[in-house]
Amino acid sequence: MAEKSVGPGTSAEDRLIARLFAPIATHPGALGLKDDAALLAAPPGDELVFTKDMLVAGIHFFADDPAESIARKAMRVNLSDLAAKGARPLGVMLAFAIPPGMDASALEAFARGIGGDAALYDAPLLGGDTVRTPGPFTVSITAIGAVPAGTMVRRASAKAGQAIVVSGTIGDGALGLALRLAPDRPGFAALDAEEACFLKDRYLHPRPRLPLIRALREHASAAMDVSDGLVGDLAKLLSASGIGGEIDIARVPVSPAARRAVDAEPALLEVALTGGDDYEILAVVPHHELGRFNTLATMAGIGVAVIGHTHEGEGLTVRDGNGAPVSFARDSFSHF
Amino acid sequence: MAEKSVGPGTSAEDRLIARLFAPIATHPGALGLKDDAALLAAPPGDELVFTKDMLVAGIHFFADDPAESIARKAMRVNLSDLAAKGARPLGVMLAFAIPPGMDASALEAFARGIGGDAALYDAPLLGGDTVRTPGPFTVSITAIGAVPAGTMVRRASAKAGQAIVVSGTIGDGALGLALRLAPDRPGFAALDAEEACFLKDRYLHPRPRLPLIRALREHASAAMDVSDGLVGDLAKLLSASGIGGEIDIARVPVSPAARRAVDAEPALLEVALTGGDDYEILAVVPHHELGRFNTLATMAGIGVAVIGHTHEGEGLTVRDGNGAPVSFARDSFSHF
Repeated sequence: MAEKSVGPGTSAEDRLIARLFAPIATHPGALGLKDDAALLAAPPGDELVFTKDMLVAGIHFFADDPAESIARKAMRVNLSDLAAKGARPLGVMLAFAIPPGMDASALEAFARGIGGDAALYDAPLLGGDTVRTPGPFTVSITAIGAVPAGTMVRRASAKAGQAIVVSGTIGDGALGLALRLAPDRPGFAALDAEEACFLKDRYLHPRPRLPLIRALREHASAAMDVSDGLVGDLAKLLSASGIGGEIDIARVPVSPAARRAVDAEPALLEVALTGGDDYEILAVVPHHELGRFNTLATMAGIGVAVIGHTHEGEGLTVRDGNGAPVSFARDSFSHF
Repeated sequence: MAEKSVGPGTSAEDRLIARLFAPIATHPGALGLKDDAALLAAPPGDELVFTKDMLVAGIHFFADDPAESIARKAMRVNLSDLAAKGARPLGVMLAFAIPPGMDASALEAFARGIGGDAALYDAPLLGGDTVRTPGPFTVSITAIGAVPAGTMVRRASAKAGQAIVVSGTIGDGALGLALRLAPDRPGFAALDAEEACFLKDRYLHPRPRLPLIRALREHASAAMDVSDGLVGDLAKLLSASGIGGEIDIARVPVSPAARRAVDAEPALLEVALTGGDDYEILAVVPHHELGRFNTLATMAGIGVAVIGHTHEGEGLTVRDGNGAPVSFARDSFSHF
């Protein structure tokens, strides 16, 4: 059940943490990763927001993905949840289980990814745990965020008669995954190298939309991040809010690479709309606040697009370019 | 990489969480586990304390341990860290990875253990994540606690010339593990059924010493919980504090079961002192505050014992009943 340590304060774990992770845990509350816990002052007047996602090799990422990319994905899927709630990051707690054969250079790359994103998103590494596993590389991050009290953007609070908005472009992550699984599909054969790289990068490296948090807190009646596919996640948001909605496929923003793949192979449209791994923001915004919402998004450098509206009742209608309702074999991906 | 869901808001994960975990997530900040994040008001004047331990089947517990016990162990090793820091629990974030073949009844038992300990220790389940893994059952908990600002008990702040104190009894958990691995050892053959059960229970079910948090905050110059063995953990605390210390084995409190096993097989003494899984509190307390510390511990219903003292210099000396220094083949267990 356990291995020998080499002496007090110098177990293999202690040495690994000291060498790779203590240098990136620069926040004073991390206590140099030398105590049993991390310490954080709560900003006065704020509420705390917590989210926790666990990622497993072979389920949520490929075991042979670069370890730095795995680290960044684990950080970003958690930070994406904070962004959707309007919360700014205060820090992260990190635990990971190292499989047999994972070498020092991979662990160094993993630490580099954690440290890089901690700096990039101002989400300092506060503490955590490092263990061995006979199974796959497994990463668990708890992201800690804060919002001014009473302003967290909920999932279940959308109202009828409002605009449905998404950030960025939809489908790139799912198409990037599909491209890795079946690169010979006609839609992907139509892509040039740069477009293929773009899609694969969007799968590997989500972009948490933290610059949108002010726009969301001030103007969204509800929001969530799109992790399991636009159609399924929107259906969840509407259902949780007790309302219905409809969106027009033609208004869903897609990247030039996704557009080319879908044009060459129309079946990929369903992958783009239901496949997940977008980590864009899905929000519901009152029509009369759209102008201000768009201005704040523009100031934040993030594109947003109205793709439909909510209404009384229930259910989600997805309409094609001719206004005809379409349905999908599945509504969303589930890793579960 | 992913399975189909059965529809919006009704993936297998959603249904599992709704059925097993939403009923135990009664804290309002858990939002019924239906949002992307949990919400918590930070108590004014407090600082937040975070700790995160990951447990892997076959490393930190036996894969065939009862799932309710696994849940309780995962909760308690984290709550033990909070206790050592003088922090009261505010809640926990839970993520776990379910291996192939783990059935619904095991998941129910796991949820029962989490819910039971959340209630017992007033550490509400706030949120988390549920995933599948091809590997071993893996549980990650982040415990969130609070202390009045400036009062968290550090590991590196012990002073020379103070008393070294432990709570409860030392060695039961390590002996319980050793008993499971080799029940025919002479020391264990000497135990009656009740004593054997006691040791195994102490391995399975740590007891976080949360009732001691006031005594620790008010009187300890430093503390940590004993998870990797008394000798090794004390050496770490002394080293982090830049001081030395010595303890007398004869003063280390042991249970009647541990006493009988060690009397029958003296080699088990080393297991008891270096084996870990105690989850007792190791603290350094100024001699003139011992009276008040003991009073608070007695009021909390937890035994504490002075086992030695700190001094200038470095290193840990462990003395036997005749005052002669002893050394061990290893100082502490490491799961790593």
